Amino acid sequence: MANITKKVSWSSRGDDSALTGEGTPLLNGTEIPKPSRQLSGSGSVFRIGRFSTVDLEDDITSEEDPIRGRPKEIPHNEKLLSLKYESLDYDNIENQLFLEEERRMSHMGFRCLEISRWVICGLIGILTGLIACFIDIMVEKLAGYKYQVIKENIEKFTEVGGLSISLILWAVLNCAFVLVGGIMVAFFEPIAAGSGIPQIKCYLNGVKIPRVVRLKTLVVKVFGVICSVAGGLAVGKEGPMIHSGAVVAAGVSQGRSTSLKRDFKMFEYFRRDTEKRDFVSAGAAAGVSAAFGAPVGGVLFSLEEGASFWNQMLTWRIFFASMISTFTLNFFLSIYHGKPGDLSNPGLINFGRFESDSVAYYYYEIPLFMCMGALGGLLGALFNSLNYWLTIFRIRYVHRPCLQVIEALLVAAVTAAVSFTMIYFSNDCQPLGPEHNEEYPLQLFCADGEYNSMATAFFNTPERSVRSLFHNQPGSYNPLTLGLFTLTYFFLACWTYGLAVSAGVFIPSLLIGAAWGRLCGILLASFTPTSPIWADPGKYALIGAAAQLGGIVRMTLSLTVIMVEATGNVTYGLPIMLVLMIAKIVGDYFEEGLYDIHIKLQSVPFLHWEAPATSHWLTAREVMSSPVTCFNRIEKVGTIVDVLSNTSTNHNGFPVVVQVLDSDEPAKLCGLILRSQLIVLLKHKVFVELARSRLSQRKLQLKDFRDAYPRFPPIQSIHVSQDERECMMDLTEFMNPTPYTVPQDTSLPRVFKLFRALGLRHLVVADDVNRVIGLVTRKDLARYHLGKHGLEELQLAQT
Amino acid sequence: MANITKKVSWSSRGDDSALTGEGTPLLNGTEIPKPSRQLSGSGSVFRIGRFSTVDLEDDITSEEDPIRGRPKEIPHNEKLLSLKYESLDYDNIENQLFLEEERRMSHMGFRCLEISRWVICGLIGILTGLIACFIDIMVEKLAGYKYQVIKENIEKFTEVGGLSISLILWAVLNCAFVLVGGIMVAFFEPIAAGSGIPQIKCYLNGVKIPRVVRLKTLVVKVFGVICSVAGGLAVGKEGPMIHSGAVVAAGVSQGRSTSLKRDFKMFEYFRRDTEKRDFVSAGAAAGVSAAFGAPVGGVLFSLEEGASFWNQMLTWRIFFASMISTFTLNFFLSIYHGKPGDLSNPGLINFGRFESDSVAYYYYEIPLFMCMGALGGLLGALFNSLNYWLTIFRIRYVHRPCLQVIEALLVAAVTAAVSFTMIYFSNDCQPLGPEHNEEYPLQLFCADGEYNSMATAFFNTPERSVRSLFHNQPGSYNPLTLGLFTLTYFFLACWTYGLAVSAGVFIPSLLIGAAWGRLCGILLASFTPTSPIWADPGKYALIGAAAQLGGIVRMTLSLTVIMVEATGNVTYGLPIMLVLMIAKIVGDYFEEGLYDIHIKLQSVPFLHWEAPATSHWLTAREVMSSPVTCFNRIEKVGTIVDVLSNTSTNHNGFPVVVQVLDSDEPAKLCGLILRSQLIVLLKHKVFVELARSRLSQRKLQLKDFRDAYPRFPPIQSIHVSQDERECMMDLTEFMNPTPYTVPQDTSLPRVFKLFRALGLRHLVVADDVNRVIGLVTRKDLARYHLGKHGLEELQLAQT
Repeated sequence: MANITKKVSWSSRGDDSALTGEGTPLLNGTEIPKPSRQLSGSGSVFRIGRFSTVDLEDDITSEEDPIRGRPKEIPHNEKLLSLKYESLDYDNIENQLFLEEERRMSHMGFRCLEISRWVICGLIGILTGLIACFIDIMVEKLAGYKYQVIKENIEKFTEVGGLSISLILWAVLNCAFVLVGGIMVAFFEPIAAGSGIPQIKCYLNGVKIPRVVRLKTLVVKVFGVICSVAGGLAVGKEGPMIHSGAVVAAGVSQGRSTSLKRDFKMFEYFRRDTEKRDFVSAGAAAGVSAAFGAPVGGVLFSLEEGASFWNQMLTWRIFFASMISTFTLNFFLSIYHGKPGDLSNPGLINFGRFESDSVAYYYYEIPLFMCMGALGGLLGALFNSLNYWLTIFRIRYVHRPCLQVIEALLVAAVTAAVSFTMIYFSNDCQPLGPEHNEEYPLQLFCADGEYNSMATAFFNTPERSVRSLFHNQPGSYNPLTLGLFTLTYFFLACWTYGLAVSAGVFIPSLLIGAAWGRLCGILLASFTPTSPIWADPGKYALIGAAAQLGGIVRMTLSLTVIMVEATGNVTYGLPIMLVLMIAKIVGDYFEEGLYDIHIKLQSVPFLHWEAPATSHWLTAREVMSSPVTCFNRIEKVGTIVDVLSNTSTNHNGFPVVVQVLDSDEPAKLCGLILRSQLIVLLKHKVFVELARSRLSQRKLQLKDFRDAYPRFPPIQSIHVSQDERECMMDLTEFMNPTPYTVPQDTSLPRVFKLFRALGLRHLVVADDVNRVIGLVTRKDLARYHLGKHGLEELQLAQT
Repeated sequence: MANITKKVSWSSRGDDSALTGEGTPLLNGTEIPKPSRQLSGSGSVFRIGRFSTVDLEDDITSEEDPIRGRPKEIPHNEKLLSLKYESLDYDNIENQLFLEEERRMSHMGFRCLEISRWVICGLIGILTGLIACFIDIMVEKLAGYKYQVIKENIEKFTEVGGLSISLILWAVLNCAFVLVGGIMVAFFEPIAAGSGIPQIKCYLNGVKIPRVVRLKTLVVKVFGVICSVAGGLAVGKEGPMIHSGAVVAAGVSQGRSTSLKRDFKMFEYFRRDTEKRDFVSAGAAAGVSAAFGAPVGGVLFSLEEGASFWNQMLTWRIFFASMISTFTLNFFLSIYHGKPGDLSNPGLINFGRFESDSVAYYYYEIPLFMCMGALGGLLGALFNSLNYWLTIFRIRYVHRPCLQVIEALLVAAVTAAVSFTMIYFSNDCQPLGPEHNEEYPLQLFCADGEYNSMATAFFNTPERSVRSLFHNQPGSYNPLTLGLFTLTYFFLACWTYGLAVSAGVFIPSLLIGAAWGRLCGILLASFTPTSPIWADPGKYALIGAAAQLGGIVRMTLSLTVIMVEATGNVTYGLPIMLVLMIAKIVGDYFEEGLYDIHIKLQSVPFLHWEAPATSHWLTAREVMSSPVTCFNRIEKVGTIVDVLSNTSTNHNGFPVVVQVLDSDEPAKLCGLILRSQLIVLLKHKVFVELARSRLSQRKLQLKDFRDAYPRFPPIQSIHVSQDERECMMDLTEFMNPTPYTVPQDTSLPRVFKLFRALGLRHLVVADDVNRVIGLVTRKDLARYHLGKHGLEELQLAQT
């Protein structure tokens, strides 16, 4: 698939860093080894293959050659599975070094580790809360300043005429903000685009997305989201908090920053995928918690989206991080707002408290709520479909950074123009009561003592608009305003999601839903003007918001809790659940969830919860990759270097075998070793011969592996002389001596369950005398999925 | 450990049903086979061993012989692990029959299955809700009637004198209720005693507790709890709902009732441990949901206490069941209370709504809350310690049903007497305001227009008392009343838990906590009489209740959500979490949680979340049981019958091996077969010779195994003639051909993780050429635990 250069992809900019290795001498004193099966002139495949470290089979790349001749045809991206993504290893590498360390450790040592885990979770919570606080204050300051300037300008020109100057001012201000945000994202860190939730979902699923948890990403994300919200786009600042929390967690838990080249020599024990992933779950939860003031919702989000093996202690730590995060945010915001100690605004968004007396619901309203849920599912599916086609378009045509920035500017300008037009032509004047809570009431063409209600919907951060829709008095909005607003905002939000800016989709979804929900409420009230039960359209706004958001993102359990925690009232727990479930069922009938669409479009080998239902006829023999490159327990250095440098079969895990003497049979499995381990071994020249000659040399320790984690150098940067190539390397101490194995007749669901439940990266398929006959990796399982016509197999590609 | 006949134990009455097999002829025409290693005169061990079907090693029972000589010494029960409990098999038996069925099934078939799962969850919700409704109404009716009679009686005698008659009436009424409840539980179904939560925890953990999910248990439980609550014991009706929900789930999901001998020919696919356990999780969640009106709390309870592998679809179904359950209860109770459609009382207990304005908290109150959490932890540990010793005492001396009933009567009488004395001597008169919400205000010796406040605390169902403590106006209780009440109720509740009555500990704990919490609030207010912030002691009552309950049961995440959902307000979410966490940390320092204590005292092989931290030096070789009894793929019927009838080695799972011809080496593993499968095969006489002679005979199908599930007949009830003993049986089709295996060097944590994450029952340990060298079962893993002096190994016993 070399003909579509996916520049918009999550890892499009991964090549630059790897390119540094290109100039370094490869294997001094020897010729560059030929890949076992050179592809005919496939330059780009070769290039990608060399610097990415993925499990790819050479027979797959050869399959794609026919397409090479037809550069016009662009394949359907959904049906591909990218080979460029590595897997995380959630399974501990229990080699001798590890076991020795664990056995040396006392009970007290384990207790200290446990305490440091709690301390890290506390730190994650505090830092995530502070970041949320910073974003909130910055957005409020910048947006406040912007609205103040425009409001004064509009008021100046309303009487005089020449409102177009105000429009231009508005558009220019918005574009300036978006320009800054867009440039940062498009040029410096494209992975910081969007909400980051799909990326975090993939990470928690066990897929390593390049650069997703780096400090640079965090910085770009934070400033990017401030710019996009202040720039008046139809976006929210809540989704990015989840990504920010995850980055914070990945950074804090490692006790160092590779970007800043600082190592605090702390938490070295946690420098491996297993531990890091646990902390990233906690960080994501802390992010949700800070965004919505929903600590329990955060925990559930982490579990619903990420976890596979539920561990009680881990869950409690995640809960702790969430709790600290929302508390920190709450505490500092209360100081900022001049009401220290008032802890009633626990999140970035606060839906305002629904007082229970005024908004009780009756059981005969439940069918209505269910209809709204179905409507939410439909509209959500529409939103997702539109966004899907838009994303396909972007992948094909809008892949250069400058084009991406221009598109963002265009959206900013159109948003400003549309808003202005709507405000200009609307004549929905509302009395400006004494208890009004609009921060920037625009009088415009209304009479004195009145304000333009359409303007309040647009002329506000989306968070405030949601709150107005939930809580304003009946009669604050007229139906036409709401209808028009829903329509325009729907398309604007759909266009905006996927732009090269940092932005979330939660708040726009809630806003769209709240608008049409309130509209439903108003219509119901107008049908039965005498009945008091439909009096408050606010509750319909709430239900509509839940339905729309559920229809777009398709979360149920966690979203219910988030909504309940954000409204501060559990009365609506039951209807919200019902609505979310119906929205999900209806939506799933037409189209997948928004995050899943984006994950699919990136061809990520994402593992779902269970194997496809009708996959029992497949066995490990059919799904596994074979033949497998194995190493002997004591292997020649040259062989190892050749295999690792072989760019056509870029394996990551190698079974270690014991060859039976004087026998042609394949050797017996005795362990599993990873590319990263071999690289460290080569770097430290742990050769049998050298060990004999230099007895004083210090033994390789676990610390050496941890120091190299997670950015192991490419094989090309390691110098191996011709003499050294003849040395032998003893892998016994470093390999995992007890890899999980399955017999070749194991059914796919059984293999899948083992793989998923334990978070494996490599699963060895062995025959009845323990000989290696294949290796199952993530892509082997992820490529089977249930399509419209039964079980389908995705093609593997290197895009 | 035959010297302590644990009659109070969860499975003490399991022998009767198995005894039916004793008289039946065993192996017609042949002598009874001798166990390979007959124990010297250990009659009781033999008896238990024969009829229970557990994995026990003969070398273990011999270890216990020395103790046999000293019948006076009673061993410390905690240090034992009982062998009488079977394990559930959460791993699907993927044999040929199963795979054929799955492969035959279309995509539509799987969809129908999925729909029936949802239907079952809906049914579970509805039935659980109805049961909760029934309990609630019955308790209200009976307690109302009782209080009415006593109130009239007291009022009659207050002026005249002779209040002792009222006391006697009260005591007699209470004793009558408790007598009925106690007799039902002690004589008909001892497993229905207590809250049932420890039993359900064990079931969800994978331990088969005999009779825990039978219809009879449900009936006894429901009527038992009505009697105990109406009998005025210090108990709640909430805990038993969890057990009831689980029984409902186990019944509904199987589409038949073995007790009623009705088979509806529905849901036959779900007749195996894997599916049943999933539904039982849903049932437990529905129970919590109905008890506390907390659907999310229910889901979290199920997960926190039971689940190991988190599955999104399963979680959603659990959530659905919970939702339906609370809705059903709510709907019918609203009709019963004459306010149809008012869905504001979603659970059995409703803590009443905390309106947010009146009860805001400030951050400087958080240290106070934390201190209360610590106090709750301390008091909880005290409660648990006392109850621990009491339970030991009960196990030793109060094990006959009649003694148990007498103890229950004693507690009922003492409770009535203490309450009466407290009311009699208290002079805490409160004005009877116009808005009072006491149902039975007792004037007693108070002036007209006043009522005795001590009486309201005792003279009420505990649920109402909790609500009064949360919501009554400041000044409704005087400190002395609360102090005395806390003290007496603490000891009464402690004494009551573990009696042979169906009763929960949630509400008594909440009541104790609310009482001392309110006391704290009052004391704080009296220190700073001018400050308005301490004005409302209700919030301290809430925090105290959470602290006390957390200190006793040690749940955090689920309990937080339950408390939040039951109070209908998330404002207190944060302090409640904090308090629960501190209560848990403090409490865990001194003593385990109440449920864990009871599980330990029953010597259940309970698997915790992770292997003990310092267990890395143990490997599969050390923990496994060996030698293992294996079968050949084509095995002689006589051998199978002999092995199954061998009462000293009562194995449940047998590796199936292929013998290499002309070789002395152990044979290679090719599968795993269960005792239950072999029994069905023997019953249907699936012999190679018969198959040849009777070609027309129908092939054994999966249905035959499902029909026999879960009560497989004992081997003694199966007639095998001498001729048949010479036949051969082909196990190929029925064995699981791909059992999970581990190499013998695998560390214990790794074995543990595999075993726990996949919910295994048997894990085969194989050497490097795939020969069986051992078998790891639940007891092999559960017996290692972290004690005060590092890793300890529990003894295995047959008690």
